[in-house]
Amino acid sequence: MMKPVINFTPGPSQLYFTVEDHMKVAFREGIPSLSHRSKKFGVIYQETVEGLRELLGIPEGYHVYFTGSATEIWERVIQNLVGQNSFHLVNGSFSKRFYEIAQQLKKNPNKYEVGAGLGFDTVPTILPDTELIAVTQNETSTGVSVPLPFIAALRKANPSVLLAVDAVSSLPYPDFDYSILDSVFFSVQKGFGLPAGLGVWMVNDRCIAKAEELLSRGISIGSYHSIPGLQTNAVNYQTPETPNVLGIYVLSKVVADMARKGIKTIRHETDYKAELLYQLLEKHADWKPFVDNKSNQSKTVIVAETGVHTERITKILLEKGIQPGDGYGASKKSQLRFANFPTHSKEHFELLVDILESI
Amino acid sequence: MMKPVINFTPGPSQLYFTVEDHMKVAFREGIPSLSHRSKKFGVIYQETVEGLRELLGIPEGYHVYFTGSATEIWERVIQNLVGQNSFHLVNGSFSKRFYEIAQQLKKNPNKYEVGAGLGFDTVPTILPDTELIAVTQNETSTGVSVPLPFIAALRKANPSVLLAVDAVSSLPYPDFDYSILDSVFFSVQKGFGLPAGLGVWMVNDRCIAKAEELLSRGISIGSYHSIPGLQTNAVNYQTPETPNVLGIYVLSKVVADMARKGIKTIRHETDYKAELLYQLLEKHADWKPFVDNKSNQSKTVIVAETGVHTERITKILLEKGIQPGDGYGASKKSQLRFANFPTHSKEHFELLVDILESI
Repeated sequence: MMKPVINFTPGPSQLYFTVEDHMKVAFREGIPSLSHRSKKFGVIYQETVEGLRELLGIPEGYHVYFTGSATEIWERVIQNLVGQNSFHLVNGSFSKRFYEIAQQLKKNPNKYEVGAGLGFDTVPTILPDTELIAVTQNETSTGVSVPLPFIAALRKANPSVLLAVDAVSSLPYPDFDYSILDSVFFSVQKGFGLPAGLGVWMVNDRCIAKAEELLSRGISIGSYHSIPGLQTNAVNYQTPETPNVLGIYVLSKVVADMARKGIKTIRHETDYKAELLYQLLEKHADWKPFVDNKSNQSKTVIVAETGVHTERITKILLEKGIQPGDGYGASKKSQLRFANFPTHSKEHFELLVDILESI
Repeated sequence: MMKPVINFTPGPSQLYFTVEDHMKVAFREGIPSLSHRSKKFGVIYQETVEGLRELLGIPEGYHVYFTGSATEIWERVIQNLVGQNSFHLVNGSFSKRFYEIAQQLKKNPNKYEVGAGLGFDTVPTILPDTELIAVTQNETSTGVSVPLPFIAALRKANPSVLLAVDAVSSLPYPDFDYSILDSVFFSVQKGFGLPAGLGVWMVNDRCIAKAEELLSRGISIGSYHSIPGLQTNAVNYQTPETPNVLGIYVLSKVVADMARKGIKTIRHETDYKAELLYQLLEKHADWKPFVDNKSNQSKTVIVAETGVHTERITKILLEKGIQPGDGYGASKKSQLRFANFPTHSKEHFELLVDILESI
């Protein structure tokens, strides 16, 4: 089977265009069998952290841990940062799953839920004993993005509550003010364009203090991937378990590539590419953006309401070597999702839009 | 930096010799960006399971799940299979860590502990309310192996207790009778010679029933990687989260390569290679096997007590392109560990023994 020329599924998505070369070098240098207790691994971990700091503007006092997936991080966030009460903004399948994980861990989560395709109009009132607010900044299932000013307002209204942001399918695009966030996380197979199998979890000192407080109260915060366990290792650029060493190595290289290109350029190009596709959808007779409200339209996962035309569009795109993402869940046959990640070039998007216009 | 010609560290270890080629094909076929919800991924998962069944002789009624690491599986075993009481055979750093994870998860573990380098003389008496016995079949830190007849005796004395076997650094070598075990697990960067970042967890129907019983009693068994959650997905060859798709693909290929070579051949060669090195150590004036008792000497992780000569031996081996494993923890400067995995050929071991003899 030939692989499609361009993969627009929102994750796993098109590889970042340098990944295959980095993988070849990795094999030449023995990275796939490198001991995670070696000095060389420590250097790779450190380069990844310093690269992410530079690329995303992550301040001192933020720590970077590695997990098996972002799904794992949902669990670790709840386990380590919530004794009892979390609060979740829910507007799709993934934000809902974050909420359900809190239930499965026998916490007492509350939620502010709106329908699929919708954003949050007002900053909800949060009960005073809430320990953590969970925000899915980019709902991969529906293409709804939570605007950064909304997150700032949420923080302003709740200065002492921990604020955790799932940025799985948006980073490196959003220009977060990390000083108002306590934890941010992503998985590598979306915006960073790596093979799946690695999550990146960033926490600040308030998160460490919270996990230690829960621990001192006799609450289980998990075992090998508790924040104190991760942190004890991270100060020496080590991990509690044998991690995905090859993935971390490739991430360090892709982050460096992105820094060389420049985060401003990446963000400008993301805006440009999103605008191309949204303009087409806005003006089209039969299709439209699934998300009506412009301020909630994700720049990185663009969902098209294509109705009965969905199957035909998919067929035509595939013939041209373009793999669109299916609509999520119940919308599989009536929507298409298009990832707009750094590896998707302006030329890719111009081609996509040209083909869509010709249909 | 040139990579060593042969890597004898006990994990991450030398890659299985076909891995690099499989990785190249994977990129050609688009596996690194393959959706884990695609039919093609289901086929890869199924091939991996069927390959493992054939290679290891795993009977029907056993289910195969994927995790981020074997360290994760320690946590999931305790979480899903123990309400309160687990019992651990402890004789080194890794079996001890399994025990400690039960403590961190607020269970009530008991243990039968012997010193480093020792095996277990007698089948211990286990309290009647014990729910799970945890056996580390091959202690990677010390090179002590638990003989299969001992495991059979343990089972015979405790027919109704769940029996979980950590075979991280021994599989595919041991010829387990899976019908007397309830759960067996390993990570791919040891005997299977893959890059790290993937754990393989096998459970039988008794494990599923136990996890469901705990769940029905209101006990948290975790979230996305609970046994019922994994099982619901596994019946359709799916995973709850986006897994290490590339790792699973390469595992399916390596398992097929090993099946073609034949598990009997792999086991015979392992015995032969182990015998070469143990014979040298037994007859040497200044070095000896760390594990005295022959029936406890691991065939897959061979630990040499090299005392004050350790640094010099390491230097000479490295000059010849051979990477030995350091002794574990406090034994770093007085022991060397040598992995004897399927990728280490008879010629590799003959070369190793020749060089060691010449020192």
